Amino acid sequence: MEPSTIRHEVIDGVLVVTLNRPDQLNAFTPTMADELERTFVQVNDDDSIRAVVVTGEGRAFCAGMDLSSEGNVFGLDESKSPTLADMDDLDDPELSRVRDTGGRVTLAIHDCRKPVIAAINGAAVGIGATMTLAMDARLVSTKARFGLVFGRLGIVPEAASTWFLPRIVGMPRALDLAYRADILDSAATAEMGLANSVHEPDELMQEALRLADAWTKGKSPVATALTRQMMRRNSAYDHPREAHRIDSLAMFHTSIGDGKEGVAAFTEKRDAEFQGRASQLPTFYDEWMQR
Amino acid sequence: MEPSTIRHEVIDGVLVVTLNRPDQLNAFTPTMADELERTFVQVNDDDSIRAVVVTGEGRAFCAGMDLSSEGNVFGLDESKSPTLADMDDLDDPELSRVRDTGGRVTLAIHDCRKPVIAAINGAAVGIGATMTLAMDARLVSTKARFGLVFGRLGIVPEAASTWFLPRIVGMPRALDLAYRADILDSAATAEMGLANSVHEPDELMQEALRLADAWTKGKSPVATALTRQMMRRNSAYDHPREAHRIDSLAMFHTSIGDGKEGVAAFTEKRDAEFQGRASQLPTFYDEWMQR
Amino acid sequence: MEPSTIRHEVIDGVLVVTLNRPDQLNAFTPTMADELERTFVQVNDDDSIRAVVVTGEGRAFCAGMDLSSEGNVFGLDESKSPTLADMDDLDDPELSRVRDTGGRVTLAIHDCRKPVIAAINGAAVGIGATMTLAMDARLVSTKARFGLVFGRLGIVPEAASTWFLPRIVGMPRALDLAYRADILDSAATAEMGLANSVHEPDELMQEALRLADAWTKGKSPVATALTRQMMRRNSAYDHPREAHRIDSLAMFHTSIGDGKEGVAAFTEKRDAEFQGRASQLPTFYDEWMQR
Repeated sequence: MEPSTIRHEVIDGVLVVTLNRPDQLNAFTPTMADELERTFVQVNDDDSIRAVVVTGEGRAFCAGMDLSSEGNVFGLDESKSPTLADMDDLDDPELSRVRDTGGRVTLAIHDCRKPVIAAINGAAVGIGATMTLAMDARLVSTKARFGLVFGRLGIVPEAASTWFLPRIVGMPRALDLAYRADILDSAATAEMGLANSVHEPDELMQEALRLADAWTKGKSPVATALTRQMMRRNSAYDHPREAHRIDSLAMFHTSIGDGKEGVAAFTEKRDAEFQGRASQLPTFYDEWMQR
Repeated sequence: MEPSTIRHEVIDGVLVVTLNRPDQLNAFTPTMADELERTFVQVNDDDSIRAVVVTGEGRAFCAGMDLSSEGNVFGLDESKSPTLADMDDLDDPELSRVRDTGGRVTLAIHDCRKPVIAAINGAAVGIGATMTLAMDARLVSTKARFGLVFGRLGIVPEAASTWFLPRIVGMPRALDLAYRADILDSAATAEMGLANSVHEPDELMQEALRLADAWTKGKSPVATALTRQMMRRNSAYDHPREAHRIDSLAMFHTSIGDGKEGVAAFTEKRDAEFQGRASQLPTFYDEWMQR
Repeated sequence: MEPSTIRHEVIDGVLVVTLNRPDQLNAFTPTMADELERTFVQVNDDDSIRAVVVTGEGRAFCAGMDLSSEGNVFGLDESKSPTLADMDDLDDPELSRVRDTGGRVTLAIHDCRKPVIAAINGAAVGIGATMTLAMDARLVSTKARFGLVFGRLGIVPEAASTWFLPRIVGMPRALDLAYRADILDSAATAEMGLANSVHEPDELMQEALRLADAWTKGKSPVATALTRQMMRRNSAYDHPREAHRIDSLAMFHTSIGDGKEGVAAFTEKRDAEFQGRASQLPTFYDEWMQR
């Protein structure tokens, strides 16, 4: 099934996902949420893909939630007011209309087995901004704008952005950004620590692809997938001994897997040819994802 | 009941709390702890207040614990040596003399529904420094001094500062600051990432009020209160899915509340007039606070 | 029993640990892991030691795992594939060959009662790099190199480095460093926020000792030991009230201990002479370590 709001293109093993509603400045809809979530789940099983780059068609990256679309968050059924206890089982179909759509996307990005890079070509506002916080890097064009504008609309930052943002810019800047709810230009975005780098518009995509290459070319997709989750999950535990449990298993399994080839290639001073596949991670990985 | 150690003044919806024992350099006493704790609880129910600014009367912000005062932490009853298990129920009245007084204040600041800004006009030492770490921003005058001096006194950083400080400056600087136990001038305070900005003494208060305005004027007090706790609590969970549960409820409730006005005003290109009150947050909020 | 792969030297109360296999660029072996782990446990009971500095003999700090040594991680028994549930009891002797050796060392460093400073004199690669992330500061010589090279070998960052690294450099840089798996020179190491400071090679050790003095001379070893764990453990809890429990006990016990002398010395404007010993911490400390 072809997606209708986004476009997929594979460039030398990198999946480029283009938000593709340029006439609506790529405004986010429930359909786009579904298509993005599906993309980040499916890429886990596609061993031909090393990394993902997300960008926008036309002059915007994503101008935020499409306020005119059917079934947007502002059309919630008021009679069905959920409690916190109701949220315990996120898979409960009853919750489907309550669950923040942006969060469904960022949780899929967080759980992805491939590095994900945002190539922010223009305005990234609301969910257009927060979706990028779950990605591994944000490259911005000089034409980019970045805005956590929720506070101006009487609503709150979503898409688990309050989990991701302080990890990127620290707590004082995270609070300042959310309270002010301003739209930042590319220089301010970089100064706040939100951007990894700033580029000329016509160089943005090649720089994103170059970063994807630097991160994944000649590397084991198994080790990369494990490293991605170790950095994200291990760091959030309350004691490093939890990281140590995971490390031990990940090192054990990579050592008897791609690590053999990696060490052999290193010793023989040649390029490694890794056989591991990110679609087939060690058994403990699924155990870990369930926790 | 008028407080005796602090002063309250409301300037256009901003509560200015002035530590008011200038002859003692605003040294912290158990009474000041009670009065500050009560202030940050009461402000939650006062819908006329948008934000809080804390400053000091005279030349100091707060010179630390008043070592001469009755019942200070250095007068603890040695015969009553508590265990960690004893601390499980913090509401146990038996613990009242053991509980760190500074921590009672910073927990109240942490739980506050309004943004809190420190306007550090002079020396902030010991609890005078650590209390500001629980606030949302630290604006410092060129005359400010900042010192986590506990290490020089044979005691430990308190007021939950070891929770707040690494979130502000990162772990290496947090350790360095606590181990050195030096008193920093305003330039060093800013360089260490402890200050949001540095100001001339006679401009400090107006800058703090300006920041309070930038954060809260024209914004929904409900969205602001929720955002404050989301940033502080969601980021500390071990997985973003916990943030997603809260996001979904906060977005649901603001969308059927102030979000309607926010979106309407945005669509109609006019200023929003939010009706929500921070004293009346959605039901899930209390559930959440109990967790 | 004299260690065979490291050297101990005490300089005015500072234990200098020198990785001492210069002909192998101080490559890490299971014996070195044992000797380092034992060092960081034993120093807890040695009240003559204020702080620890770790450096390397010859031109390297530590060139990583010794790939030629017996029993290294790459010689794991493939038939014994552990699950995550298996890892629950880290003390299970069955796990001894599975447990990441680097992690045994960094957990001992994490739990140490004395400040630990890395004086990185040359190449710090693989475990040579990750072991320093658990230390309290990294001072680097202009000849230092720093490389999380795991990704090039088909394996993963270990030694709980995914817990420590984002706390030092933030999440975007942590991911970038691990994915790229490059070796950084001293300037890049500092620019990435990995180094506290950069020094001329012949000044590195004296600067490390100077920092150890600034951190511990004239300070209570009890307060220092408690502060170290408070910063590391309290900050990782999901709410500051957990820090408040620990603070209250740590402040209670230091107030009736070295805090009395500290306050007396401060009041009398003289140097404090603390009697507390890090080998004898308050009872709650052991309770806390068990949690």
